[in-house]
Amino acid sequence: MQKLFIIKIGGNVIDNPSALTTFLKDLSSLNHKVILIHGGGKVATEISKGLGIEAQMVDGRRITDAETLKIVTMVYGGLINKNVVAQLQSLGRNAIGLTGADANVILSDKRPIKNGVDYGFVGDVTKVDDSVLQTLLNANLTPVIAPLSHDGKGNMLNVNADTMASVTAVAMAKSFETHLVYCFELKGVLENFEDKDSVISDINWDKYQTLKDQGIIAKGMIPKMDNSFDAIRAGVNSVRICHADDLVKIVNSGEKKGTTLR
Amino acid sequence: MQKLFIIKIGGNVIDNPSALTTFLKDLSSLNHKVILIHGGGKVATEISKGLGIEAQMVDGRRITDAETLKIVTMVYGGLINKNVVAQLQSLGRNAIGLTGADANVILSDKRPIKNGVDYGFVGDVTKVDDSVLQTLLNANLTPVIAPLSHDGKGNMLNVNADTMASVTAVAMAKSFETHLVYCFELKGVLENFEDKDSVISDINWDKYQTLKDQGIIAKGMIPKMDNSFDAIRAGVNSVRICHADDLVKIVNSGEKKGTTLR
Repeated sequence: MQKLFIIKIGGNVIDNPSALTTFLKDLSSLNHKVILIHGGGKVATEISKGLGIEAQMVDGRRITDAETLKIVTMVYGGLINKNVVAQLQSLGRNAIGLTGADANVILSDKRPIKNGVDYGFVGDVTKVDDSVLQTLLNANLTPVIAPLSHDGKGNMLNVNADTMASVTAVAMAKSFETHLVYCFELKGVLENFEDKDSVISDINWDKYQTLKDQGIIAKGMIPKMDNSFDAIRAGVNSVRICHADDLVKIVNSGEKKGTTLR
Repeated sequence: MQKLFIIKIGGNVIDNPSALTTFLKDLSSLNHKVILIHGGGKVATEISKGLGIEAQMVDGRRITDAETLKIVTMVYGGLINKNVVAQLQSLGRNAIGLTGADANVILSDKRPIKNGVDYGFVGDVTKVDDSVLQTLLNANLTPVIAPLSHDGKGNMLNVNADTMASVTAVAMAKSFETHLVYCFELKGVLENFEDKDSVISDINWDKYQTLKDQGIIAKGMIPKMDNSFDAIRAGVNSVRICHADDLVKIVNSGEKKGTTLR
């Protein structure tokens, strides 16, 4: 089967123009088919503030109310997505920007109220259309997906970008040898958070449980790891968690960088 | 050759949620292949105001400075485009939102400074990739194009939506029997502006010159007409200027509504 890399880039790179340009140069030099999924970044928060829209928080979680949904649709689906696409075009990589609504590629259900918490316009993905993504990939296009979906009833929905990457990888694993790569600001999952070089090179499910029990894997890393192991169980060949700077070495040269989950 | 309708919808419909929903219902019921090009509307101006960005005007023309470019990229490429796409999905029409940067579909040059006026990030279209639009149409997708292009050097550019529709129609005329339809708030080009029913049903180039000399066709209608005749000379089968409410009658029933240019 042909190799396909599903690459997720987070808000910290999106927020830093020179880091973003470096990343996109690297991405455009990859020798394989790629789907890029990007996160949000701080711009949405800044624009919300500028417009006097207060972020709604419940238990430390942001609530996507109607006004916030408009902002993220503008910023993630418009500003960030088109900036990334235009830069990739200038680098000779023929990219096409998508939200889940475009070509009905990622359909979601609005998250039901849980324990009295209404998260608002947040989606839980129900379906990824791998055939339309294949059509685009076969036309030598690189899909660039914003963390937005829709409910099929006319509403856009905010979706966690890590989840978006994971469900997309699972869907594509039917027809490609699929590798999911989470690029972030660290060299990988760290044994000791104080030592940025203490990368754990391989983690399987049992080791993950141990690291969780020891508190080495905690907080925001837990949903990322859960998503990753879900993806592997559903047929994704590998999941890598690595620094954005190591992308080319990993994809083009097969170097052992970052943390690999199997 | 197969029929293709390039339909342009303006800001007045975009700004009116119930008119937009009616229009999209009509569009989703059309029996032919369609490319929709949408205008901007007032939302960009409102958001600019909200963020304290002053519109830059020179000789009554809006200048697209860097801040304004961000706003239109967000609003046209994000908010409006995705709202239209999500609504079309809910109506069973499989739409895909695009700017000119996506799949490199519409490439432009930044407009050079003319007579000392720098219009800023405004594009003059240099190339429309009809083959990628054909790929999307063949996949039963309805492209929904925002009035934004790119320069191939990483910059988005603002493009007049009427022009975008016209150049797209010209490019598609190579492989389809192409009909360009400008939907707006009037029943067509009017003989007497006071009488909203005084539609001129047919205009050719000579008649256009006469109507221009008589001042019956004036102001904003002149670039629309010039674009239209350019399109016809370049192979587009017909151009219609009509009310959005007449779209279904024109496309599905072949009724003689609005003003037809040949």
